[in-house]
Amino acid sequence: MSLHTPGSALRELRERRPLVQCITNAVVTGFTANALLAIGASPAMVDLPGEAGPFSAVADGVLVNLGTPAAEQRDAMREAVATGPRWVLDPVAVGALPIRTRLADELLRARPSVIRGNASEILALAGDGAGGRGVDSTDDPSAAGPAAAALARRTGAVVAVSGAVDLVTDGDAVVRVPGGDPLLTLVTGGGCSLGATMAAFLAIRDPFGAAVTASVAHAVAAERAARTATGPGSFAVAFLDALAALHPDELDAPGRVVVGGGIAA
Amino acid sequence: MSLHTPGSALRELRERRPLVQCITNAVVTGFTANALLAIGASPAMVDLPGEAGPFSAVADGVLVNLGTPAAEQRDAMREAVATGPRWVLDPVAVGALPIRTRLADELLRARPSVIRGNASEILALAGDGAGGRGVDSTDDPSAAGPAAAALARRTGAVVAVSGAVDLVTDGDAVVRVPGGDPLLTLVTGGGCSLGATMAAFLAIRDPFGAAVTASVAHAVAAERAARTATGPGSFAVAFLDALAALHPDELDAPGRVVVGGGIAA
Amino acid sequence: MSLHTPGSALRELRERRPLVQCITNAVVTGFTANALLAIGASPAMVDLPGEAGPFSAVADGVLVNLGTPAAEQRDAMREAVATGPRWVLDPVAVGALPIRTRLADELLRARPSVIRGNASEILALAGDGAGGRGVDSTDDPSAAGPAAAALARRTGAVVAVSGAVDLVTDGDAVVRVPGGDPLLTLVTGGGCSLGATMAAFLAIRDPFGAAVTASVAHAVAAERAARTATGPGSFAVAFLDALAALHPDELDAPGRVVVGGGIAA
Repeated sequence: MSLHTPGSALRELRERRPLVQCITNAVVTGFTANALLAIGASPAMVDLPGEAGPFSAVADGVLVNLGTPAAEQRDAMREAVATGPRWVLDPVAVGALPIRTRLADELLRARPSVIRGNASEILALAGDGAGGRGVDSTDDPSAAGPAAAALARRTGAVVAVSGAVDLVTDGDAVVRVPGGDPLLTLVTGGGCSLGATMAAFLAIRDPFGAAVTASVAHAVAAERAARTATGPGSFAVAFLDALAALHPDELDAPGRVVVGGGIAA
Repeated sequence: MSLHTPGSALRELRERRPLVQCITNAVVTGFTANALLAIGASPAMVDLPGEAGPFSAVADGVLVNLGTPAAEQRDAMREAVATGPRWVLDPVAVGALPIRTRLADELLRARPSVIRGNASEILALAGDGAGGRGVDSTDDPSAAGPAAAALARRTGAVVAVSGAVDLVTDGDAVVRVPGGDPLLTLVTGGGCSLGATMAAFLAIRDPFGAAVTASVAHAVAAERAARTATGPGSFAVAFLDALAALHPDELDAPGRVVVGGGIAA
Repeated sequence: MSLHTPGSALRELRERRPLVQCITNAVVTGFTANALLAIGASPAMVDLPGEAGPFSAVADGVLVNLGTPAAEQRDAMREAVATGPRWVLDPVAVGALPIRTRLADELLRARPSVIRGNASEILALAGDGAGGRGVDSTDDPSAAGPAAAALARRTGAVVAVSGAVDLVTDGDAVVRVPGGDPLLTLVTGGGCSLGATMAAFLAIRDPFGAAVTASVAHAVAAERAARTATGPGSFAVAFLDALAALHPDELDAPGRVVVGGGIAA
């Protein structure tokens, strides 16, 4: 577990420019690619059966996002995770919708490095919730803490629950990342691009460090963007600018990473 | 028919945050979701067979947009409208292209609450025109007035014709909504997000009121955005900011809704 | 070969507003459509089997971009090029990924007017390179000069290699287009929208003139956008504004088009 120095992880990311394969939903592909480019990674949206498998074997990190899992994309996901890459599962709207719920259960067996979702999705995946209504979360990250820890222990993945205060756990240790800005909830792709950024940091850190570093980076960038934005449209633009302008030292400021505090706090 | 008080409809929308299922084209998914989030609705792009049907039964409004109707999406559309939801049909480029033209005819039998298109599309759907060339309209909304009224009477839908002055009719009453800004025609997704916004207001108002309220909201937001924009890129960003900043009273200003005037005026 | 007066080509484009069919990847559809609208063309994302063929017969130019070639889209590409349109092939990530590599070889037989790619893609298509890693180019345009010329002679297409200095060749003549801005490499869709713009200018100029004019227009717009941008997010927005604000005379400024210099210079 390498929680310390998210700033150094950002420095390394920009030096190595990891190749991140994104198998993600049709709504956020452009924003996700732009977020990865802005922070310093190299995105590749390779989601075809016959290409997704071979590509995942050379990618530095893989994102599997279940937002719009058409039939071809489902096969591409299966191929990609079968090569044993470092990968992030983003179980969008799982629990609420049947095809992706079955798919998530199936993909879990391929052992994701990180599972990132909102509280409703994590509760549903852990078997504790009724699911949200689409990408909205109707639950608080801390309320999902015990479910997240249980899910982490069961799957071996680090589980990251996104919300006003992000929560990251491997089933034992717990870290919280406060900050960010509510405007991010009015931009489609905010959470999805966070999952992609975690996949990028899998090239640089272990799963726990990758999830925490990405969460901190997004929190800092969102705060910076909110200072100039006049609404959700200008916020999305400023957020991309802020990701590119992130200084590694900002990520290491006191209070960015809150260790411990218990799973049900 | 509840034409009065589009402002109160906006207030209710923001309180209730209706869940809007969008089965829409690949070009505008992100912009459409962002427009719905900005005005205060909750978008969900659920367009898979096996999920689209169950989801439409719980959604507050459904958008079916024919812009890029791939085979899976066509099946999802059939599923979604079969559950009897309140829904908007946006027949993009119908008349000019064969697959969506047949699909539109088929979907009409499932009785959309609102049909929204440009003049060329409405003329084509009513059987009076040769179709446009893609999403462009080569006809004026008022020129499509008689066709719109006939289509409304034949299908039971409210028909909204978008253009420099929008026209809304149920086959009997006619309302015009002036305003907006020509820059909106240089942004892909302007019309498509208007259809989505009508689907959102179907949770709040009857189809006539929903179509008129959404048209007024977009007109006011476009005018506000044009005041700061320096081109179509900054206009799109400012338009999202403006949707979020809309004050309900602005929608009730005099002259926003012009009742009557005749269908061929 | 009509290299002179890219400015007059832009004037004609805005008068005629050519209809550009885009069969392109899921990541950049919105940005590409907005770029075409901004410069003055009329985009239509018609990529379904059964529609793509008939539409290509009436479109003024067609873009075939291999970024995310799902099965239906591959069939649509075959249909579209079979009607003998003026068209641009953008072989995204060819060489690195098997399905699109075979597809590119097949499509080449339908004789594209222009082939646009980065150096890695052109090297791979010409049989001289190992392919890039996704959309990144690991090679310099000038290094791909001999391969580009050989590919042009073999296929009859004009070949455009994008990079810090763009290179355009028909296998005999060579033109270089300097300028632009590195920020364009941090925006997804920069290269893809350049290919689309070349397809638009195919309605106005021969393939060589179309490729050069589009390259000059993008270079000038990127420089203008960079003057106000504060990062990649605001750059993308300013780039669309700049395309719309382009003055034809700017495109004819000295030094925008560098003729000759040899293929291996």
